[in-house]
Amino acid sequence: MQTTADIDVLVSEVGPRDGLQSIKAVMPTAAKKAWIAAEAAAGVREIEVCSFVPAKLLPQMADAAEVVAFARTIPGLTVLALVPNLRGAENAIAAGAHKIALPLSASETHSKANLRRTHDQVIEEVRQIAALVRSLPADRRPGFEGNVATAFGCTLEGPVPERKVVELACRLVEAGVDEVGLSDTTGYANPQQLRRLIRLVRAEIGAERLSGVHLHNTRGLGLANALAALEEGITTLDSSLGGLGGCPYAPGASGNIVTEDLVFMLDAMGLRTGIDLPRLLAVRRILAEALPGEALYGFTPDAGLPKGYEPGGWGIATAA
Amino acid sequence: MQTTADIDVLVSEVGPRDGLQSIKAVMPTAAKKAWIAAEAAAGVREIEVCSFVPAKLLPQMADAAEVVAFARTIPGLTVLALVPNLRGAENAIAAGAHKIALPLSASETHSKANLRRTHDQVIEEVRQIAALVRSLPADRRPGFEGNVATAFGCTLEGPVPERKVVELACRLVEAGVDEVGLSDTTGYANPQQLRRLIRLVRAEIGAERLSGVHLHNTRGLGLANALAALEEGITTLDSSLGGLGGCPYAPGASGNIVTEDLVFMLDAMGLRTGIDLPRLLAVRRILAEALPGEALYGFTPDAGLPKGYEPGGWGIATAA
Repeated sequence: MQTTADIDVLVSEVGPRDGLQSIKAVMPTAAKKAWIAAEAAAGVREIEVCSFVPAKLLPQMADAAEVVAFARTIPGLTVLALVPNLRGAENAIAAGAHKIALPLSASETHSKANLRRTHDQVIEEVRQIAALVRSLPADRRPGFEGNVATAFGCTLEGPVPERKVVELACRLVEAGVDEVGLSDTTGYANPQQLRRLIRLVRAEIGAERLSGVHLHNTRGLGLANALAALEEGITTLDSSLGGLGGCPYAPGASGNIVTEDLVFMLDAMGLRTGIDLPRLLAVRRILAEALPGEALYGFTPDAGLPKGYEPGGWGIATAA
Repeated sequence: MQTTADIDVLVSEVGPRDGLQSIKAVMPTAAKKAWIAAEAAAGVREIEVCSFVPAKLLPQMADAAEVVAFARTIPGLTVLALVPNLRGAENAIAAGAHKIALPLSASETHSKANLRRTHDQVIEEVRQIAALVRSLPADRRPGFEGNVATAFGCTLEGPVPERKVVELACRLVEAGVDEVGLSDTTGYANPQQLRRLIRLVRAEIGAERLSGVHLHNTRGLGLANALAALEEGITTLDSSLGGLGGCPYAPGASGNIVTEDLVFMLDAMGLRTGIDLPRLLAVRRILAEALPGEALYGFTPDAGLPKGYEPGGWGIATAA
């Protein structure tokens, strides 16, 4: 999603989808709604609220339609849903999602393990979803994004050739997505690699079609990668409140970058997100109460805001 | 210290000083020696091995002279010692340190609390140390660095005026230091602020006199700040093995950036450090054995190296 005139960076919260699908506990629907409402009230403009997958595969997402219906009632919030295939897209559209996102893993080994589909099969699915989207009247037509997952390396295949990522980004656009995102699913990316891949992909599909990246903090480079992406003109960054859905400190961990730390960095740098950081920090309580025993992460929440911090722009950054 | 022709970035290990002085346990001298030797063997070129302060104030540093004498025997290693005053400098020089570093806190409140001295008093001390250094024959003359501490904000004063940091950097140079460093003692820095302050200070004292920064990861921005510093042409980065000396995840924490994560980032970006990352990771065992119960941090050590990682430059970064 493109940022609007009053913000510089769109922080896209993915915790209700990426976070919740990665833990065993099932969050009650009421808590999901409270979480989404509280983050929106803190100023978050886009939330990936669920994934439309069969409930027998992911019971955490069984209430996807109800969650989307609720989130749609929040003014100013873009409601995003992940869809693995045409069936999921149909359900997401019926529920009223403003935007749907489909992952396509650059590692075909990972694609087969994750979606049980080859690249060709996923692209065919994208083509059918795009046709469905185009068939809808303009006021009911959702945005459609394709995300190249494992774009910076794969835990199964190891290094992923950049030309493969560029090729898949092109194929996604040809098959009909509006936008392409790049996902560091495995926490392998480094700033230099990220910069180069953003440039390579944009050179092929156009800068306006690549506005967002999805980063993990598995090796501690999450915010350094976010900084590199910003410098390349990326304006949408995914993150997860409390780093939910993966212990970023443990072996095999897959934690997203932490929303609170990301917003602190952006805020301190003087970039406008529209988010009130103290209010955002207070949302953690909803997660802590609804998911007892589940670890919440974040350096800024642990250390606290610096002395002299002012919401909406930090004094130190402009101290004369 | 300037980097040499065969490396791009000098990773300056500060754990034996900054790490050990921040924990209660006293590491046995033999373990310190083993640690220093093992890091040097892994390719680390500069280590801040101790602080020359009275043993009754910091019993962890009581063996400073012995540690310096040992470290000097390691070929190719620059042995750095922190000194709070002239007396400390005399002892460090007598012990044979290749380089001495003195902290000057931009926050005068912090300076009085930390060194029990005003800015004027610290500068006078610097002047006397510089005179001592100049009086020595060239082959026994150590490098002399002044570090502006709390340069990005202070837990006591809050925001620190940038003009104060620039002014103190100038006064350090006038008083006779060879080089100036900037220290984010409190973990308040953000990439934008760091960039601006590096430029402001360099504009006044010359780029060649500011080659290093000392960063903490208190709010998770440590590596993002390191990236920003690199982009500004900084070539020396301080870090601590295992993030020793401060829980970076806990309230009030003051952890340095983790050497292992920093080296992983630099390595993955294709920057040469001279350090063998798998060998560096193995050094953690010495700390774990010598400091039972002390927490060691690091995302890369916890998550492991990516599949396909190759020492001395990572395949993914250049995957065609």
